[in-house]
Amino acid sequence: MAVIFRRRGTGADAPRSRKPRPDLPVDRVSLDALRPDPVSVLARAAYLQLGQFEALSRAASGAGEIGDKEALSAAAGRALEKHKVLAADLRRRNVDPTSAMAEFRPAIDAYFALVAGDDWHELLTSIYLTGGLLDDFFTRLTAGLDGGERVSTVLAGDSGTEVIVRLLSRDIGEHPSLASRLAVWGRRLVGDALLQARAALPASRKTEGEERRIEPILTDLMAEHTRRMDRLGLTA
Amino acid sequence: MAVIFRRRGTGADAPRSRKPRPDLPVDRVSLDALRPDPVSVLARAAYLQLGQFEALSRAASGAGEIGDKEALSAAAGRALEKHKVLAADLRRRNVDPTSAMAEFRPAIDAYFALVAGDDWHELLTSIYLTGGLLDDFFTRLTAGLDGGERVSTVLAGDSGTEVIVRLLSRDIGEHPSLASRLAVWGRRLVGDALLQARAALPASRKTEGEERRIEPILTDLMAEHTRRMDRLGLTA
Repeated sequence: MAVIFRRRGTGADAPRSRKPRPDLPVDRVSLDALRPDPVSVLARAAYLQLGQFEALSRAASGAGEIGDKEALSAAAGRALEKHKVLAADLRRRNVDPTSAMAEFRPAIDAYFALVAGDDWHELLTSIYLTGGLLDDFFTRLTAGLDGGERVSTVLAGDSGTEVIVRLLSRDIGEHPSLASRLAVWGRRLVGDALLQARAALPASRKTEGEERRIEPILTDLMAEHTRRMDRLGLTA
Repeated sequence: MAVIFRRRGTGADAPRSRKPRPDLPVDRVSLDALRPDPVSVLARAAYLQLGQFEALSRAASGAGEIGDKEALSAAAGRALEKHKVLAADLRRRNVDPTSAMAEFRPAIDAYFALVAGDDWHELLTSIYLTGGLLDDFFTRLTAGLDGGERVSTVLAGDSGTEVIVRLLSRDIGEHPSLASRLAVWGRRLVGDALLQARAALPASRKTEGEERRIEPILTDLMAEHTRRMDRLGLTA
């Protein structure tokens, strides 16, 4: 099994060609030595999508405008679809998704409690930033799993959270002090999300060489995070 | 436009042939004199499904077991699908669903606050009973709308809330005192749900004859409510 992370080119033209998702395997960094367990990866990803669904539903409930409520509900529906596809893939591997997810529940519940925020704006910021980062990460990780292409494609699909950019821009425009608070919050979130990403990689036997293989991925995830912060009008 | 409510036979064999949904138009009670405005009916139904989605998402968040969380999330996804179909039908009629729903939002938000309950069990009971009643009602009401067949069929579709029967039976089994509290709650809920149903019918010009046409429908809705209470092991 070859676990592959796609890596964008790092030449002078890289920033110009930067895209939300790595469409072209310009360069590949093999992580096959890490051999993550497919069932664990899929179960973690499935439970994370269920948590994202809950967060988005809560955000929808808190929306002031009906149109925003609809858009956030639709995004919740997309997270639920991603969850279903991941659960179906586990079943296809003769694994009961409910049991498989149970192992990761305490850690992931604790994670979602950490990134939930104190109000609607912090929740929206978190959904956009951490959801984006983890979708990116699991898109790459599942692409390298045996038979993981379909799941990877689904994870790479539109999460419907672009509405959050509009909502936050509008509210930051009306209350500029929000920007500095959310920027601090966004910087804090990335650490929690990266820990969730690393937790999905086998931890015990990482050699220095393996760490070096992971490093560019984390750099890429951080770059995408910075891009998302920019889109929200926040300083990373 | 002929607004038709399907009515089950009221002969001696009626209880034996009673089914969750009226599959056969054994007998029809025409309500065409009431002429409900299709846009208002669809907009109300659409916003009610969005509220049902939120209630189910909240119930999913409160679930103790992962499997229950998944089942309730899936039911939330179904309510969201019904909402989408209703919104699409409004768009097909050249109506912006967001604007159309806005008129009914205050009343329906107040309704959902009334039926939310004080804890998870009351919320589940409410979702099952009031959601079932209003799905029944709007299935019938939209069936009589010009071009409303598709929407009616979708509303009649599985809401995925059968899981609630299992959840409540289990918890009532463990805590029998729950049954009497939820029975009182269930009896209270039906009034709130019926008010939402009646609100969807034109109110101002109802004649005595029209009231007589509505009455059998309400009787049917009550009978279905009693059946649902039975399934939950509650005395209606």
